[in-house]
Amino acid sequence: MDKPHEECGVLGLWSPEPLPVADLLQLGLFALQHRGQEAAGICVSNGKDLVIEKDLGLVTQVFDEARMQRLRIQGANLGIGHTRYSTTGSNLRFNAQPLNVRSSKGILAIAHNGNFVNALQIRQQLLEHGAVFQTTNDTEVMINLIARYARLNLVEATARAMRELTGGFSVVLMDRQTVLALRDGNGVRPLVIGRLSNGGWVFASEPPALALMGASFVRDVQPGELVWVESGELRSMQVLEPHPTPCAFEWIYFARADATLDGIPTHPARIRMGEVLAQEAPAVADLVVPVPDSGIGAAIGYSRASGIPFDYGLHKNPYAGRTFIQPTQEMRDLKVRLKLAATPVVAGRRVVLVDDSIVRGTTSGRIVQLLREAGAAEVHVRISSPPIKFPCYYGIDTAARKELVASTHSVEQIRQLIGADSLAFLSESGVRQAIGGPVCLACFNGQYPAGQPEEEVRKEALEQA
Amino acid sequence: MDKPHEECGVLGLWSPEPLPVADLLQLGLFALQHRGQEAAGICVSNGKDLVIEKDLGLVTQVFDEARMQRLRIQGANLGIGHTRYSTTGSNLRFNAQPLNVRSSKGILAIAHNGNFVNALQIRQQLLEHGAVFQTTNDTEVMINLIARYARLNLVEATARAMRELTGGFSVVLMDRQTVLALRDGNGVRPLVIGRLSNGGWVFASEPPALALMGASFVRDVQPGELVWVESGELRSMQVLEPHPTPCAFEWIYFARADATLDGIPTHPARIRMGEVLAQEAPAVADLVVPVPDSGIGAAIGYSRASGIPFDYGLHKNPYAGRTFIQPTQEMRDLKVRLKLAATPVVAGRRVVLVDDSIVRGTTSGRIVQLLREAGAAEVHVRISSPPIKFPCYYGIDTAARKELVASTHSVEQIRQLIGADSLAFLSESGVRQAIGGPVCLACFNGQYPAGQPEEEVRKEALEQA
Amino acid sequence: MDKPHEECGVLGLWSPEPLPVADLLQLGLFALQHRGQEAAGICVSNGKDLVIEKDLGLVTQVFDEARMQRLRIQGANLGIGHTRYSTTGSNLRFNAQPLNVRSSKGILAIAHNGNFVNALQIRQQLLEHGAVFQTTNDTEVMINLIARYARLNLVEATARAMRELTGGFSVVLMDRQTVLALRDGNGVRPLVIGRLSNGGWVFASEPPALALMGASFVRDVQPGELVWVESGELRSMQVLEPHPTPCAFEWIYFARADATLDGIPTHPARIRMGEVLAQEAPAVADLVVPVPDSGIGAAIGYSRASGIPFDYGLHKNPYAGRTFIQPTQEMRDLKVRLKLAATPVVAGRRVVLVDDSIVRGTTSGRIVQLLREAGAAEVHVRISSPPIKFPCYYGIDTAARKELVASTHSVEQIRQLIGADSLAFLSESGVRQAIGGPVCLACFNGQYPAGQPEEEVRKEALEQA
Amino acid sequence: MDKPHEECGVLGLWSPEPLPVADLLQLGLFALQHRGQEAAGICVSNGKDLVIEKDLGLVTQVFDEARMQRLRIQGANLGIGHTRYSTTGSNLRFNAQPLNVRSSKGILAIAHNGNFVNALQIRQQLLEHGAVFQTTNDTEVMINLIARYARLNLVEATARAMRELTGGFSVVLMDRQTVLALRDGNGVRPLVIGRLSNGGWVFASEPPALALMGASFVRDVQPGELVWVESGELRSMQVLEPHPTPCAFEWIYFARADATLDGIPTHPARIRMGEVLAQEAPAVADLVVPVPDSGIGAAIGYSRASGIPFDYGLHKNPYAGRTFIQPTQEMRDLKVRLKLAATPVVAGRRVVLVDDSIVRGTTSGRIVQLLREAGAAEVHVRISSPPIKFPCYYGIDTAARKELVASTHSVEQIRQLIGADSLAFLSESGVRQAIGGPVCLACFNGQYPAGQPEEEVRKEALEQA
Repeated sequence: MDKPHEECGVLGLWSPEPLPVADLLQLGLFALQHRGQEAAGICVSNGKDLVIEKDLGLVTQVFDEARMQRLRIQGANLGIGHTRYSTTGSNLRFNAQPLNVRSSKGILAIAHNGNFVNALQIRQQLLEHGAVFQTTNDTEVMINLIARYARLNLVEATARAMRELTGGFSVVLMDRQTVLALRDGNGVRPLVIGRLSNGGWVFASEPPALALMGASFVRDVQPGELVWVESGELRSMQVLEPHPTPCAFEWIYFARADATLDGIPTHPARIRMGEVLAQEAPAVADLVVPVPDSGIGAAIGYSRASGIPFDYGLHKNPYAGRTFIQPTQEMRDLKVRLKLAATPVVAGRRVVLVDDSIVRGTTSGRIVQLLREAGAAEVHVRISSPPIKFPCYYGIDTAARKELVASTHSVEQIRQLIGADSLAFLSESGVRQAIGGPVCLACFNGQYPAGQPEEEVRKEALEQA
Repeated sequence: MDKPHEECGVLGLWSPEPLPVADLLQLGLFALQHRGQEAAGICVSNGKDLVIEKDLGLVTQVFDEARMQRLRIQGANLGIGHTRYSTTGSNLRFNAQPLNVRSSKGILAIAHNGNFVNALQIRQQLLEHGAVFQTTNDTEVMINLIARYARLNLVEATARAMRELTGGFSVVLMDRQTVLALRDGNGVRPLVIGRLSNGGWVFASEPPALALMGASFVRDVQPGELVWVESGELRSMQVLEPHPTPCAFEWIYFARADATLDGIPTHPARIRMGEVLAQEAPAVADLVVPVPDSGIGAAIGYSRASGIPFDYGLHKNPYAGRTFIQPTQEMRDLKVRLKLAATPVVAGRRVVLVDDSIVRGTTSGRIVQLLREAGAAEVHVRISSPPIKFPCYYGIDTAARKELVASTHSVEQIRQLIGADSLAFLSESGVRQAIGGPVCLACFNGQYPAGQPEEEVRKEALEQA
Repeated sequence: MDKPHEECGVLGLWSPEPLPVADLLQLGLFALQHRGQEAAGICVSNGKDLVIEKDLGLVTQVFDEARMQRLRIQGANLGIGHTRYSTTGSNLRFNAQPLNVRSSKGILAIAHNGNFVNALQIRQQLLEHGAVFQTTNDTEVMINLIARYARLNLVEATARAMRELTGGFSVVLMDRQTVLALRDGNGVRPLVIGRLSNGGWVFASEPPALALMGASFVRDVQPGELVWVESGELRSMQVLEPHPTPCAFEWIYFARADATLDGIPTHPARIRMGEVLAQEAPAVADLVVPVPDSGIGAAIGYSRASGIPFDYGLHKNPYAGRTFIQPTQEMRDLKVRLKLAATPVVAGRRVVLVDDSIVRGTTSGRIVQLLREAGAAEVHVRISSPPIKFPCYYGIDTAARKELVASTHSVEQIRQLIGADSLAFLSESGVRQAIGGPVCLACFNGQYPAGQPEEEVRKEALEQA
Repeated sequence: MDKPHEECGVLGLWSPEPLPVADLLQLGLFALQHRGQEAAGICVSNGKDLVIEKDLGLVTQVFDEARMQRLRIQGANLGIGHTRYSTTGSNLRFNAQPLNVRSSKGILAIAHNGNFVNALQIRQQLLEHGAVFQTTNDTEVMINLIARYARLNLVEATARAMRELTGGFSVVLMDRQTVLALRDGNGVRPLVIGRLSNGGWVFASEPPALALMGASFVRDVQPGELVWVESGELRSMQVLEPHPTPCAFEWIYFARADATLDGIPTHPARIRMGEVLAQEAPAVADLVVPVPDSGIGAAIGYSRASGIPFDYGLHKNPYAGRTFIQPTQEMRDLKVRLKLAATPVVAGRRVVLVDDSIVRGTTSGRIVQLLREAGAAEVHVRISSPPIKFPCYYGIDTAARKELVASTHSVEQIRQLIGADSLAFLSESGVRQAIGGPVCLACFNGQYPAGQPEEEVRKEALEQA
């Protein structure tokens, strides 16, 4: 509900022999569904034909039997896929990815997770040279940049484009013969390499996609690295000097509990966040209650470090995923009540309520209220990440800065707003300690390791054309 | 997945003044969605007009804006609702409830949860008197029986029908003026009474529906009791002598974790089942892992009583609710893998895997395999209910008897089948102890407190005509 | 547009051997689509299973591939079908036919075209004996009446019901073994018998359905006759004394131009109506222009008898069938303009505009205006039937009496209303002469050969039920 | 059925003040629906925002209420629209028009009817300069060509593009402020100018679109002319020297019967074609029967010139527009039988069957057979255009050349194929005489006035990209 949104998941596959490529990509996208729920797309090729299907909706909605039939072309051996989170706009369908274009290098298709911070400047240069754009996607800028280097081959042209673009991005790219994958110099967004038992290669945002596709994990793509398949072999070019600062929010919330990114598994990191949080901000209480499902890992850690029993004090309605119930009567907090209800175990108990983050704060306030209505004696809110105060320019939709409660309120003001008996956030050093590697914490501290746009009006500018 | 299915949830509402009845019933049905996911229906009246909308699908699918508009009739002050689980058949849409008919008593609408064990005999008698039926629903039998008593008023005719029917059933019934609710003499299926702040009355299968509708819990309908609203007052008639044996599975699995039925809250009962199970069947292990979400309560209890840490060793894909991915490649256990994945915390650990029940056993075997693939050293399966060996005749779809693994296999044979290092079920006395009240355990021990059909061919017979 | 609406088309098929019954019925219904566009249904059986599919929509919409698959049961050799025109109501889907019920005679399915004028009285008697109804259809009354005679066999019970019911009706009825067809004593609505090359039998509202199903025309069912298939033979019982007065509107407008009913082909009858009309009401003009498509036959006749050239002065947009364009700007007569446009041939010409009937008169006025805007010098409207002044109680939805322009206005007043230079209707004797057989002219002269309801509030009464 | 397909209809509107632009364009497109039934699109602007909605489907399907709401932007005063006929392909949705792009000139949207014969060469040049394409549409080539002239203003750049492109094309183009319309030097495809009562301007493929939008006809756009709105005035530039050869098929079949193109009304021209045909190819017969609706005009002419009575010998099922009935039984000619049925008037008569054209010949054969089955004594087929022997490169989808029956068979061979007693086509000079102006007859005689592609593999080449 009140969570930052990951903007995309990407996927690529190359096999030395024909495979049910579309079906495998569908499985992989399903495993990446949490990274984007608004649109999905798959592109496959058999070396000759190239077919693309994409639309608004969940993976299971977009890839109905009719679409899968069209994607199941004879002899397919490579393809890419994409899931996307988007906000608003009438032309959304045409923003769905993979984006495919016909260029001097033949047909190209591209799937992208992240953002280029200098997209606007490059776009302007391309427009002045007579380029036309169909969307306001960053992705179209990258593909035009690659096409512009008409005399370079695809690998060289892509490397050249990587050098011109700044920001946080993981990209998978294909033509009719091969698949390329690349990660920005900071490795802000994740990207991993897997191997199929037949010698094929898979690229994916997270390892669980490999598992569901039957591929084994090989390694992460390195920050600044461009990899591709040539003569059946995985080739690599370290295009940019690596300065690894992967996004901390992948471990805090985004990535699946069964994922391991850059060598660090997420669920144990979440337990450690809860443990450190219990040390930094102890509470005298009877029960540790997670906000399901986002607070479960940290709640287990908090319970272990504090010795306070873990319990399931909030029931989550499993049918609440995408409900559009619009009641006519006044019930301000209905959205939360449709998803969550307090269980009777909280009655008369002092509760530690654990969640991973607070964006606007409204949801947290409603959950505290649910617990109080069910008779909780005290509610101590513990958040397993620092206050979010700054926008993300690398592919996360946090919210407009003015909507970020922590950018305009002190912790004590937020506590009063949500009606908790006490409130504490995990410290920046606590996050670093729990994850145990270098990370981007820009949304917490405003330090942008991969640069930031010249002006904040960037997005509006893109919309103007 | 491999769970028994509740067949229905029912709902009724009467208000002394106009209310957005359809919207309130939609909210209540949404809270009862777990009791039936195949069809839903709402019937509302303003004392003059009576409108009914029902179809196959989830509550949020069936009640789209167009249907809600048709249900929002001027001055509506009463209505009933239904969610339904069904198995197969081409004519399902016409089996959706509420069922409404025009009789000598005017228009009646009825919503039913449970089964009549003597429906076939009564149906046969009615046919011979010239009645016609449009479905094979038990419900149509009851409504014809009520209509047959053309000289009695609706309350008397309904009481008379209650006396003739045997089995386990909770029913909500309405005409244009009032709402009636009733429960069989054993109170097999739950039914509760709530009060709106404006003096109105609500009847619902479970208390969480009251909460979402803004009603406060008053009491359970008693076994054998018929209640109705007359002159704004709740009237009651104890039609049948009460022999309370509510269904144990409501506490084991069906009812929501935030529900309290017949005075006993479900989630604490599940924790107690886990605690008793830990005493009856201890294990030497490093982690207690629930099958999400069905095993969470019992796993917390098992962890508490055994001192073995609780952890989230299985990740559940929240998008796996209703997926129709049909891969072409061979991946036998894909259905489980789409829903569940083992997290890295189980690697090298001895795991106690806790779930609430085993029906066919196939799913349990696949989950054990997932844990082993993720490196679990040992897997000890603990089930917080006894082996299911007998069919339910009171509204639960367990499975055909020959499909019930426990009716044809010993516990040791099941252990081998699912590949566990050890396997134990909670005892019948353990269930009784954990719940703490009289319960129906017929699916475990074959003792049917509310009678059973003359012949097991009952269902087939109904299908014939 | 401004036309009376036929309420239904019916169909039945019996074959001595398995056939693709559902596909044949779908073809037949497609040929009867003009008799009802709101709902369609098919019921098939193989002697053991009986499957029914029906829904709101055109035949091609209702019978999508999924529904056809469910109807294509193994070994099917009999079935019935229905197309329906309905007016309004929220519960329409449940009013779709065939209606099927389970009775003491097993499963029955029924499809009905027409109305019973004493349905209300019989329904009241049945209610008092404990019957319940799910719809306000006349059809449900008939089926309950048949079920009531539990000791008679199906043929005898049906004959008995025919004797009790009055009105204008053609009915097709089936159980798992056979198909029955019957027509009221006046033969108000058409019904014909066809033969398949394999010895099977087909019943249909109009002969073109036989043709599309590959059956050859045998004869009309006689007024008051009940026919059925027994041991592969067509059996017949003359249940009621025949007083043939088939509905004149079948020849005027309803029945297809390629149909022959009760021995009289429709298109030549329409040409004769135009010829008689030219004699009764000549005009001095340059062109005879039909309103497409309803006025084509009569316009050809008028042109032939008058010697004035026939021309295509109005273009009909073939995509205008079911348009829901809702313009925001003011354009009162848009509905007509979306369908029709005057062609330049009318400029400066004196036009005879020929149509089959006028109900409300609004459409005629707008067409006259279109012709004038295109430069027609004079517009002389000629209608090939008398003014409609009375409601039909035998299955035609004319319009409420007060909406019938001819029941409240003189011909001269109508002429002024529609802005014509002259207006004339065909006389009653002209209709009789053109058709050449006995016909029901109740909607023109108020003489109801098959009786009329006790009170005109009949329809409202049924709704209260 | 067996007809050439027009590929598109185009529309543009500019108003000095806000109007319900989307609703007016929807009406106009509805009037142009016959020019393309596969996809439709509308683009509107208020000078600041620009919204586009397009999809596969008929105008009434694409523009549902949700899409219309999105198109009804505040203060809209200009827009363009498109209806499209397409053949096959998975990516069709992205080929729907208007096409909109963001270029150095801001956002542009374009709608196109016709084909450029040198599109491939120009595309190749653009690719080599780094351009990328998303479709294989000619239209994208034109828009890239315009964008390439980054230093010219929009009018000048468009004029420059007109000079580089050859072929037959009518185009409507807009940015946020104005609308442009242009026609190739031969004026192959029609395009007309209309005026709104508020001083606004409308461009449309055919005049009936003007009429439905409430605009009055002003004049045709001239061959080689570019027109646009500037300061509320209509400006014009004669970019190319005019060599008028409009497509004869617009008068033979495509354009609506109420249209007047380049000063010549279509329906009277069709009547004259029938009259000339009767002189060129008389027949001894009893009835002249049109194939509805394509042969009506010529049949009236044939009847008038020959004195043989016109009659409605074939009934067209008005529901046959888009049927997907797929019968399992063998009925080879079902597709025709679903649409057409012979009426009894042909029995025993010698029939002249009149249609506008023959493409493959299969449909004609089946219609002859229908007439014979209904008892026609003789069937003399008369076609009101010459045999089609050559492909159209100017926007008409005739069929592959080898499928054109007349390119591989003599008239006598075709007669035998379709089973007619006699067969005759109108001569080329007959067409010229009936239309009375200069026309393109390339599909009849292979003389291409606007050039032809370098190689016939053009289309395949485009697909390769």
